[in-house]
Amino acid sequence: MTHPLSPFFSPSGVAIIGASANPAKLSHGILKNLKESSYRGKVYPVNPGSTEILGYTTYADISQVPDPVELAVSVLPAPLTPDTLRACGERGIRAVIIISGGFKEVGAAGEQLEQQCLEIARQYGMRLIGPNCVGTMDLFSGLNTTFIKGMPARGSIGFLSQSGAVCGAVVDIVSSMGIGFSNFSSLGNEADINETDIIEYLAQDDNTKVIAAYVEAVQNGSGFIEAVSRVTPYKPVLVLKAGRTGEGARAVSSHTGSLAGSHTAYQAAFERCGALEVTSGEELFNLSLALTSPTRLTGNRVAILTNSGGPAALASDSLAQHSLTLASLSAAAQQSLREKLVPSAQAQNPVDMLGGATPLEYEAALNACLADDQVDAVLTILTPQALVNPLEVAQAMHRTAADQPKPVIACLMGGASIQEARFFLNTHNIPMYVYPEQAAAALGALLRRSQWLSGYAQQTPAEADAPAVLPPAVDQILQAAAGAVSLGEFETRPILQSLGIPIAPGGMAADAQQAAHLAEQIGCPVVMKIVSQQILHKSDAGGVLLNLQSPAEAAQAFEQLTGKIKASHPAAVIQGVLVEKMAPKGIEVILGMRRDPTFGPLMMFGLGGVFVELFSDVAFALAPLNREQALRMIEKTKAARLLRGLRGASPADLDAVVDCLVKLSHFALNASNVAEFEINPLLVYPHGQGVLAIDSRAILVRE
Amino acid sequence: MTHPLSPFFSPSGVAIIGASANPAKLSHGILKNLKESSYRGKVYPVNPGSTEILGYTTYADISQVPDPVELAVSVLPAPLTPDTLRACGERGIRAVIIISGGFKEVGAAGEQLEQQCLEIARQYGMRLIGPNCVGTMDLFSGLNTTFIKGMPARGSIGFLSQSGAVCGAVVDIVSSMGIGFSNFSSLGNEADINETDIIEYLAQDDNTKVIAAYVEAVQNGSGFIEAVSRVTPYKPVLVLKAGRTGEGARAVSSHTGSLAGSHTAYQAAFERCGALEVTSGEELFNLSLALTSPTRLTGNRVAILTNSGGPAALASDSLAQHSLTLASLSAAAQQSLREKLVPSAQAQNPVDMLGGATPLEYEAALNACLADDQVDAVLTILTPQALVNPLEVAQAMHRTAADQPKPVIACLMGGASIQEARFFLNTHNIPMYVYPEQAAAALGALLRRSQWLSGYAQQTPAEADAPAVLPPAVDQILQAAAGAVSLGEFETRPILQSLGIPIAPGGMAADAQQAAHLAEQIGCPVVMKIVSQQILHKSDAGGVLLNLQSPAEAAQAFEQLTGKIKASHPAAVIQGVLVEKMAPKGIEVILGMRRDPTFGPLMMFGLGGVFVELFSDVAFALAPLNREQALRMIEKTKAARLLRGLRGASPADLDAVVDCLVKLSHFALNASNVAEFEINPLLVYPHGQGVLAIDSRAILVRE
Repeated sequence: MTHPLSPFFSPSGVAIIGASANPAKLSHGILKNLKESSYRGKVYPVNPGSTEILGYTTYADISQVPDPVELAVSVLPAPLTPDTLRACGERGIRAVIIISGGFKEVGAAGEQLEQQCLEIARQYGMRLIGPNCVGTMDLFSGLNTTFIKGMPARGSIGFLSQSGAVCGAVVDIVSSMGIGFSNFSSLGNEADINETDIIEYLAQDDNTKVIAAYVEAVQNGSGFIEAVSRVTPYKPVLVLKAGRTGEGARAVSSHTGSLAGSHTAYQAAFERCGALEVTSGEELFNLSLALTSPTRLTGNRVAILTNSGGPAALASDSLAQHSLTLASLSAAAQQSLREKLVPSAQAQNPVDMLGGATPLEYEAALNACLADDQVDAVLTILTPQALVNPLEVAQAMHRTAADQPKPVIACLMGGASIQEARFFLNTHNIPMYVYPEQAAAALGALLRRSQWLSGYAQQTPAEADAPAVLPPAVDQILQAAAGAVSLGEFETRPILQSLGIPIAPGGMAADAQQAAHLAEQIGCPVVMKIVSQQILHKSDAGGVLLNLQSPAEAAQAFEQLTGKIKASHPAAVIQGVLVEKMAPKGIEVILGMRRDPTFGPLMMFGLGGVFVELFSDVAFALAPLNREQALRMIEKTKAARLLRGLRGASPADLDAVVDCLVKLSHFALNASNVAEFEINPLLVYPHGQGVLAIDSRAILVRE
Repeated sequence: MTHPLSPFFSPSGVAIIGASANPAKLSHGILKNLKESSYRGKVYPVNPGSTEILGYTTYADISQVPDPVELAVSVLPAPLTPDTLRACGERGIRAVIIISGGFKEVGAAGEQLEQQCLEIARQYGMRLIGPNCVGTMDLFSGLNTTFIKGMPARGSIGFLSQSGAVCGAVVDIVSSMGIGFSNFSSLGNEADINETDIIEYLAQDDNTKVIAAYVEAVQNGSGFIEAVSRVTPYKPVLVLKAGRTGEGARAVSSHTGSLAGSHTAYQAAFERCGALEVTSGEELFNLSLALTSPTRLTGNRVAILTNSGGPAALASDSLAQHSLTLASLSAAAQQSLREKLVPSAQAQNPVDMLGGATPLEYEAALNACLADDQVDAVLTILTPQALVNPLEVAQAMHRTAADQPKPVIACLMGGASIQEARFFLNTHNIPMYVYPEQAAAALGALLRRSQWLSGYAQQTPAEADAPAVLPPAVDQILQAAAGAVSLGEFETRPILQSLGIPIAPGGMAADAQQAAHLAEQIGCPVVMKIVSQQILHKSDAGGVLLNLQSPAEAAQAFEQLTGKIKASHPAAVIQGVLVEKMAPKGIEVILGMRRDPTFGPLMMFGLGGVFVELFSDVAFALAPLNREQALRMIEKTKAARLLRGLRGASPADLDAVVDCLVKLSHFALNASNVAEFEINPLLVYPHGQGVLAIDSRAILVRE
């Protein structure tokens, strides 16, 4: 069965609506590209003013285009697009690419026009790519609906982009490097088909082995995560996300009219679904190329073969940065190297075959390293030498590396002189880089991928234990709070209690007598905190007194606290004073949640106290969390080492922290009117002795 | 007056000793390169078997070569080199490049041969480059003594390399990018001329504006620092150091036979002399290119001009990472942009001129941005468009940017289609990059350079206050310790005392009675610590008791400690028990020193206690330190914020920490038999209340 989006990539026939006979027009460029491509389907220019363009018979109207026609590409001005879509619908076309701009990106009128197009498409069961895009390519069917000059080599990277201009740049760059694509889509405004749809299409496209995406904003957070989660166990998905910083986000929002979500939420989302985030276009293509290798890295021991020591030293430096190590070659491999290389060559890793190394020496040495059980991958380095032909070395590498299971990555440090070898290697499953650091990063990507796959295989099914509703008591509290801006400790304590997150025993005192009574009941020492909607930072306002040793001290503290606050904050309405059992010392951590507009609740865990500010030792993950995910999140912080017991200290109750984090994530998932929630600090006691939430607050969603 | 090394770069005549008529020989390649270069001096092949090669008259012997001849390039086998050098000396030649290998890099015999060559050179007052090198180029005199294929464009980067193969790669790479060199040296084994000599030569070479070095090991640490310190205030020096990690160092030492020093010491050395360290070849050339710009960045506000939003978003992300910000364009600039660009263009920063932007629009917009006082630099981005000629855009950028004081950096995101424009820009003072991230990094380098220059201008003269000798008391202690491996707290306390670093009052007790007496004298509470050469980690061995409240408790503690250690460490010789006044709590920091074989004493400062291990919050700098340098070192750690008083806490006695660090650095400079020294912890008290060294130890240099 063909995929519903197949007509965008391998249609039996394609109509170009608005194709011009004028070579200075972009629409003419599309037709020219189609003509020059290997596409074997039918091509129909639609233009009432011509009878023939570039040898193609031209049709005055889409209704007159004969069968087969599965795809229409519209380059007509925006205001004509709705009628065109209707005509396509009537003609029975169910796939349309709208290249033209003048829609959502130009303001409200354009947005309305775009909405109208979408409605027409829905009416006819038609799917749209664009508007305001550059089109699609399929390097296997040969289809090219873009006006971009050039086409990448045929390969196994499926590329999608939310920026059309980036597409043009990418084609130009990868074509110059011999990096091959299977498939290419420019998505423009994404009125209908978005990045998730294309990733799902590429997932089932057999020619695509790696998916590389340039993304400015994800349309549907949970849909994206679900879809990508299904793909990553068998195809790597790499994402370059623009708008990572405040500055970047500003540029994005003015570009596509869509708001970029907070980048932390994106990072958590990519991690959740197993997508690999990169931070530059260069990295996107370098790592995608590496991951197209059909081999898999099963360990971190790399052999370096080189004709020069300097680049090997640079490579070694970089390997270490990517958690890779120099393999210790076996005696057999060293023996074999000594036999096959010149006597002054170095038969230990890095294997330095010296400047004169011939293609045959590369072949013999590569064979010896690949046969060594102590080697997981080989990095072959060539620096240009006057008397050595790089293409012949490349061919020797390919002869040796083909059809064997260990990755071979090549570094040919040069420019023009290695260009031919580069194309050869990149199109023959040996990813090739110019700089040793890039080659080491490529091996690093293979290692991360392989480690991720191992971790994935061991994962327990996630999220099955997340309840779909809030506990009734919590729901009641939140409903009662409707209209409030925030909830302080007094209001959030019962929420924590209902969730099963331990709090210190305590209660609200309306006067000194009640304070004394509560202190008596709870047992001293107690801590007392002012409760007022107007006092958000109780400690800073002097609204907290610690370590009160008797009911009498508690009574006195009541008067002292209320007196002080009345004087310093005359406008504050004092609801009372919270009297709580003074908690013993423990390790301070923070638990938090912020609701992201795209991906929902983003959970935070970190080291508390003064060190939060100093070291920002925090980790994030999307809700809901199961115990394993919560633990993995904690393990990402240095606080984890502290909790496990540093320098022989006894381990803290990590289980109890995990428990709180899981419970808070379930709460976050269902408490849709809570924008932010924070427990700070949560005190963690020795193993088996649990935790205590000492302060907490919530910010509610503005209605 | 010409520089003594000038003959290596612009000799009046050059003899190639061992030049072959066989095109398959490297020596023939050298002659061919000289012939094809623009070098206008005399060229004399020396080869007893030929009369003419490549049209040059050939001489049987160097003694027969006529005037003028200032440089000889020897490609004869290693064993023939000493005689050749003598012959050159007799002929009056004072500059020789030895291309041939077979010297130090092949072992002891080769090292002896190399030493012999050096002695002959000294005898004749002759300077040597090499052996085992690739030669030199001067893009202005046209000299090319290498056999490398191709030559870089003429430009203003002076490049030197300790690896010959890296040289070949570099020429090939930069030639393909239009990055211009002034000067090029491959230094090989550095028997005579080393990296410092060449940097000094390039410093006075008017054609060289930026010095870029590939270094595996610095020969003379203090000489390098002195020389480079003199250069960096007026010419940037960039260094790519191989052997940064243990793995890398392993590759280096097997390559050149020289041991790479610890990378931390290198970093401290580069910082001390103002050299900019880079971590890849790509970065070395990208940033060197940026720094050849004759303009200077005076602020961090960047305007982006683009024909596409996506790359502008990526650029914005990267600018933020390099401490640069998007400029807010003035009303006048915005007005001008609105007038000159199409109505749908965005006249705010990033200025998006849209896909159709013409060379004239680039020119007008660049003019408007450069004229804006709120803009310090402009990043111009072009993505390839079907109807726009990149070279014409490049020419428009150059027309506008030439002769004005603000940096303009270009990003042309493409491959083959922008190649011509790339050459044009890179050879016309507009550094050009393919990826927005690279362009942002280039601006980042300009900012760092400009900030470094401002800081340099404000610096007080350093090191004037470092004493040249140790205090006599300290000298005595160290002399008395000769033969020992390490000194514990008991032996290092008097050193600290003599240096003026505060220690807690205390003394050594030989029995329980003395312990009680000392406790009485000092005043309780006290802390007691076992003293034994065999017990290095006193706490771990249970050899420390804290908070003893009375002389009786001290007496009891003596018996307890000695009894326990005798039982657990029967072989340990117990010298006694140290009784010290128990110090009040303070902020724990570490002060340390490690003597580096290349650069001498490397000082360390960091946060102490359990957090050292958790966060590795430490900084390094080379001794000696003046107060300003010590403070700058402390400021590099997060501990500095803690010491300055975090969240309203009262500030700690930073002055006292600075004082200790300066004193310890002076000690380190002169205590040449101390390999390592550490004070851990140094307790820091509130401002004005000083510090206390609570524990200290030294490791002595092995004789």
